Amino acid sequence: MESKPAPLVAGFSVGAASCGLKKTGKPDLGLIFCPEGAACAGVFTRNRVKAAPVVISRRRIKAGRCLAVLANAGNANACTGPEGMAAALEAGRAAAKALGIPEVQVLLASTGVIGKVLPAQQVARAVPGLVRGLSRADQAGLTAVASAIMTTDTFPKLAWRSGEGYSVAGVAKGAGMIAPDMATMLAFVLTDAPIDAMTLQGLLTQAAETTFNRVTVDGDSSTNDTLLILASGKGKALKGRALTGFAEALFGVCYDLARMIARDGEGATRLVEVKLSGAKTQKEALAAARCVANSPLVKTAIYGRDANWGRIMAAVGRSGARLNPAKVSISFGKAQVVRGGLTLGPRAEAAAAREMEAEEIVLSIDLGAGEAEEVVWTCDLTPEYIKINADYRT
Amino acid sequence: MESKPAPLVAGFSVGAASCGLKKTGKPDLGLIFCPEGAACAGVFTRNRVKAAPVVISRRRIKAGRCLAVLANAGNANACTGPEGMAAALEAGRAAAKALGIPEVQVLLASTGVIGKVLPAQQVARAVPGLVRGLSRADQAGLTAVASAIMTTDTFPKLAWRSGEGYSVAGVAKGAGMIAPDMATMLAFVLTDAPIDAMTLQGLLTQAAETTFNRVTVDGDSSTNDTLLILASGKGKALKGRALTGFAEALFGVCYDLARMIARDGEGATRLVEVKLSGAKTQKEALAAARCVANSPLVKTAIYGRDANWGRIMAAVGRSGARLNPAKVSISFGKAQVVRGGLTLGPRAEAAAAREMEAEEIVLSIDLGAGEAEEVVWTCDLTPEYIKINADYRT
Repeated sequence: MESKPAPLVAGFSVGAASCGLKKTGKPDLGLIFCPEGAACAGVFTRNRVKAAPVVISRRRIKAGRCLAVLANAGNANACTGPEGMAAALEAGRAAAKALGIPEVQVLLASTGVIGKVLPAQQVARAVPGLVRGLSRADQAGLTAVASAIMTTDTFPKLAWRSGEGYSVAGVAKGAGMIAPDMATMLAFVLTDAPIDAMTLQGLLTQAAETTFNRVTVDGDSSTNDTLLILASGKGKALKGRALTGFAEALFGVCYDLARMIARDGEGATRLVEVKLSGAKTQKEALAAARCVANSPLVKTAIYGRDANWGRIMAAVGRSGARLNPAKVSISFGKAQVVRGGLTLGPRAEAAAAREMEAEEIVLSIDLGAGEAEEVVWTCDLTPEYIKINADYRT
Repeated sequence: MESKPAPLVAGFSVGAASCGLKKTGKPDLGLIFCPEGAACAGVFTRNRVKAAPVVISRRRIKAGRCLAVLANAGNANACTGPEGMAAALEAGRAAAKALGIPEVQVLLASTGVIGKVLPAQQVARAVPGLVRGLSRADQAGLTAVASAIMTTDTFPKLAWRSGEGYSVAGVAKGAGMIAPDMATMLAFVLTDAPIDAMTLQGLLTQAAETTFNRVTVDGDSSTNDTLLILASGKGKALKGRALTGFAEALFGVCYDLARMIARDGEGATRLVEVKLSGAKTQKEALAAARCVANSPLVKTAIYGRDANWGRIMAAVGRSGARLNPAKVSISFGKAQVVRGGLTLGPRAEAAAAREMEAEEIVLSIDLGAGEAEEVVWTCDLTPEYIKINADYRT
């Protein structure tokens, strides 16, 4: 898909601008506008500490309909109390005014430093220019939005699928503080398919569960996680099995974005897919996969291209998942290093080390205790992660 | 306590030797011998994957009595199947033979690389010299044992207390793969107090729960964790309230050792004490404290001397613990940075950054939701951690 340009998503205009939240002066404000209104649904952080824009968007999305999404990077407007709420509302109001729509129809999302009140006037001053610059929701337009919401991301994240008579396209940002339930991430999916809000909510929740909620960079989840879907209804009606096709397209977009987020984990040099099989239950499979994906020792070993299966054994062992030590097997890519719970020796490990030269590593672990399988994505842990996060606010 | 030398623990001889498991040639084999027998108790890893020496010691300790402990560093003898079991038994048998005691009276502990069978003959060859070199369990002797079990530890860990007519002294190793239930750590506590095995087990479990099980370096727990206590019974009988005094002394030794392990976390520059208060329940207090202590983002910020309270808010928020956002307070040492859920501003953060120059940082967090309190110890996350663990096996 990435060879062809993204299809146009009918019914939307999008744009980006700089309002000075990023010290670099790069675009930090993104706007999505659906003049005739969109059915919408969302999935938000389950963190008990929720940023002001999350509180507002969760409330507004209950209507199932919205006209715009205003998103910014550089300031998360989290843990900012009543002042932060007022600032978020003011920013949304500025967008509503410039677009000539009711403010309750504007959804909000913010990402960046926690604990600083969003400078709403700064945002408000940039909004008229942002609105004037709105353009079609095509590859260029969506890339501009994806770039505006980047924080420590190293590349804009954009994914799409086309169905019969409709398109689905999404943008996302991730990078740090990425963990299940959800990642610190923002993702906005646009489609022109005509689907009602309740159906959208069901499909989005389902897609998020096996994509965004299977990504973990550092086990930290954020105060601002927001995944939104907007459907303009400009495309052809979906009849019968076409809805299944749409669900698959939506899953595909979420899947691509989730993997991009893992690949672009802070300081990451490798995308790691942890494929856990042979667990007694689905829950145990997921717990074991996450334990491996969150283990700093495993992630550091991958950075060091060390097929350190002992650390993987220790991680699954402490996950609470039942396992049969005499039946455990572990492979890095195509190179199996453990069979029947025992090492296959230095030659196998050398082969595994070679597999780890690839940008994407599939870590296959079988617990030998049952039939349940789960997949989780993560990245390696590198000195660059420490550097980025020790200096982040300075 | 650390200004005075450790007291002699009567009834024990201890020693260390090099058998070549450490490539540096440094001592890697420690022996504790109690010729007239000791009451004993132990706490072992809850990891489902258990190393051979753990399997054997767990079985043998059930007798409540032992004569010796043989411990090695440089090879964990974990995930090594029947061969590993045979090797561990052979090493123990060599010690038993040299000491002239039954092999079932020898407890075993190993730490080091996972997945390699312990070269038992190498160990066996060093045992006679090790036995000949046994000396009293005083400061010098115990330091030798503490040094022999070091892996990536940067200093030998030794702690002690004296009671009326008895001493309690302990040695430990920690460094990496340190997490609750237990740390990857070995710790051996010796006392000459006359206490039966069942009482010892109760007191040890209790002491471990609030000391070793409150330490986390990287959330990884190991296949080899072993905490043993041996009581020679050479000291004065404990009557009435004296047992409470002994329990306190035992707690003190475990407390000191646990904090040393946190302080010496791989690559650590700071000992961090997370004091969590104001939780609804004890369980929630512990969950929130651990979430903060395990957060790579929090730990990296501490390394960067950044009073990044937003990351702490995010960590407690995702811990599952109930909190009252409008009542949360956070302090670094004496510098409060959050009151009523809101930042106290740059000046407060600057003061907090200064507090972080200390080698030991107390991070106080109040959730404002209840009365429960818990303490967890950890360390900062540094580039050195990555370096150590990316290269560990090479």
